[in-house]
Amino acid sequence: MKSLIVDLGERSYPIFIGENVLTEERLSHYIQSNDVVIITNSTIKPLHLQTCLDELSVFNVHVFVLDDGEQFKTLDSVESIYGFLLKHKVNRNVTLIALGGGVIGDITGFVAATYQRGVSFIQIPTTLLSQVDSSVGGKTGVNHALGKNMIGAFYQPKAVFAQLSFLATLSDRDYFSGMAEVIKYALIDNKILYTYLVEHADKLVMRDSECVSEIIRQSCNSKARIVALDERESGVRALLNLGHTFGHAIETLMEYNGIVHGEAVAIGMLMAADLSCSMNMITSEERREINSLIQHFNLPTSIPVELDPSEFRRSMNLDKKNVTGSLRLILMNGVSNAYIEKNVNETLLMDTLNRFILT
Amino acid sequence: MKSLIVDLGERSYPIFIGENVLTEERLSHYIQSNDVVIITNSTIKPLHLQTCLDELSVFNVHVFVLDDGEQFKTLDSVESIYGFLLKHKVNRNVTLIALGGGVIGDITGFVAATYQRGVSFIQIPTTLLSQVDSSVGGKTGVNHALGKNMIGAFYQPKAVFAQLSFLATLSDRDYFSGMAEVIKYALIDNKILYTYLVEHADKLVMRDSECVSEIIRQSCNSKARIVALDERESGVRALLNLGHTFGHAIETLMEYNGIVHGEAVAIGMLMAADLSCSMNMITSEERREINSLIQHFNLPTSIPVELDPSEFRRSMNLDKKNVTGSLRLILMNGVSNAYIEKNVNETLLMDTLNRFILT
Repeated sequence: MKSLIVDLGERSYPIFIGENVLTEERLSHYIQSNDVVIITNSTIKPLHLQTCLDELSVFNVHVFVLDDGEQFKTLDSVESIYGFLLKHKVNRNVTLIALGGGVIGDITGFVAATYQRGVSFIQIPTTLLSQVDSSVGGKTGVNHALGKNMIGAFYQPKAVFAQLSFLATLSDRDYFSGMAEVIKYALIDNKILYTYLVEHADKLVMRDSECVSEIIRQSCNSKARIVALDERESGVRALLNLGHTFGHAIETLMEYNGIVHGEAVAIGMLMAADLSCSMNMITSEERREINSLIQHFNLPTSIPVELDPSEFRRSMNLDKKNVTGSLRLILMNGVSNAYIEKNVNETLLMDTLNRFILT
Repeated sequence: MKSLIVDLGERSYPIFIGENVLTEERLSHYIQSNDVVIITNSTIKPLHLQTCLDELSVFNVHVFVLDDGEQFKTLDSVESIYGFLLKHKVNRNVTLIALGGGVIGDITGFVAATYQRGVSFIQIPTTLLSQVDSSVGGKTGVNHALGKNMIGAFYQPKAVFAQLSFLATLSDRDYFSGMAEVIKYALIDNKILYTYLVEHADKLVMRDSECVSEIIRQSCNSKARIVALDERESGVRALLNLGHTFGHAIETLMEYNGIVHGEAVAIGMLMAADLSCSMNMITSEERREINSLIQHFNLPTSIPVELDPSEFRRSMNLDKKNVTGSLRLILMNGVSNAYIEKNVNETLLMDTLNRFILT
């Protein structure tokens, strides 16, 4: 069992990583209320709900089951949960538990932030992607028809339990999607993780449990460090969006169909690498290495549908990171040395878009 | 011009009170963005919007106009505003301005808390009630069909401008509704304000501007002090709910028709006084004094419709304050000495309900 702390003063919380952390670390110790509401989805429920319930026998537990998919990460789902909580007369001394992937975590966190002006919640991420990324750092929210994650709040959980046994039921596609975010931390600032990924790539493809546990710990460490420096993303936290401005545009234009988040981020990181290379900040050799690593984990290296480059460029502008109205991108000044580029060269950017977009 | 600070560390902010504070204190100095979105309602727009716009000529200003009324304090209204902001490609470096009463303030604050995980907002309350109460302290939110203020967040504004000239257009009913919250501060812990209200009651009925300015300052001072002690209502802040558990039940059961918030709170405070009296914590004479003060300001002293006492009692239980599942009420152990009663005597409570409810 591994653990670390996200250091945010009075909002600090622990992350536990291990094969059976729910039991080993006693989930029930982190719940201060009588009422517990588990929010999960129809895929996770038959797989992992009972494992959670076994740890919660002393509580008054209700379970809310959402349909599975990014398309349900909406205000409509949030409203359904509000109604469920109110119908069960759940007051603000409740603990919500997010049992699922990023969608469940983001929705549950947002409900926790906004039900009766804020209630406690615990993250039990069931996917690699959510264990290394979305369950840590307090970003919560839902999508809007006009943009991804446009509605939300910063709201920290009381604890995160990354139970590795849950990953056994993950499809290869979802597993590798999670690897995209691991690669992201390696490319941002974690050279040790980058080397580890290169050296243990085959074992990781085989899901060797010690290797998986190690990259989750290293990823959470990277993320916890950056979040502690900048909880509300006014500065350095923006680095965590490496690949995401490109990726969100891909997801938006594909309407979240035919691509999963990590795949979009993988392509986005390659686009960032491509642009960084054309700005002479990484070498062609480094760009190819990154490309190989991404391919090694069965992630796509080009956008799988036809898109319009101009429309793609416009979509990038609505990204939340563009606080000043002008585009800001996370690029790489060397591998494991990402930075925030505020003066993007439009010509080079359009060249990159044209290289990646099949028209 | 009077001013005070709500002391909340890095979330501290000023309240300015005066006939023309928007001009005197330069609203524009408190805006760090180019984009400004004013959220107001159809009643306020023709009365006071231009006064605001005159102070905002250097900004890129959009105006969103809601219908007027508590019945529009819903997630539907919130969604409409999200859509408006996204259609205008407003990014997170925007300042929202709430121009209106409590409904506009609560909705705007909630949108500010949840649009792109939080943007800046400024309160320009236009009613006495919102100037002394809802604009200060960071409670934001909307109603749900199953309960008032069930959805919301704690989120502080950057500044509050209480422009007294706006009160001139207030109906007597709305003005006196605001007086109910002023009386509340007097009854909670502000004996000086209580005496001031008794001694200046006639002048206040006539809306003497110096007297009105003074009670707003004293009310904001009371509220700022309590909020600074307990921003997220885990303790002493609950005192601010004097009269509100009863009042919310009245509003809920009357479906927000035929009664305004301050009137419901006025009746609620009398119910609290009645119960406190039957517990021998205030004298019958003090109860009558409070009754007289409330009557003096043309506020109701009994519930204007027939209700069922048992249903009323059940409705009180859903109030957010009941964190433990058992009822907690704010009662008075003497005038200007409110406290949190955690062991409510059900027999005495039902006696009070029966005395106030016409069946």
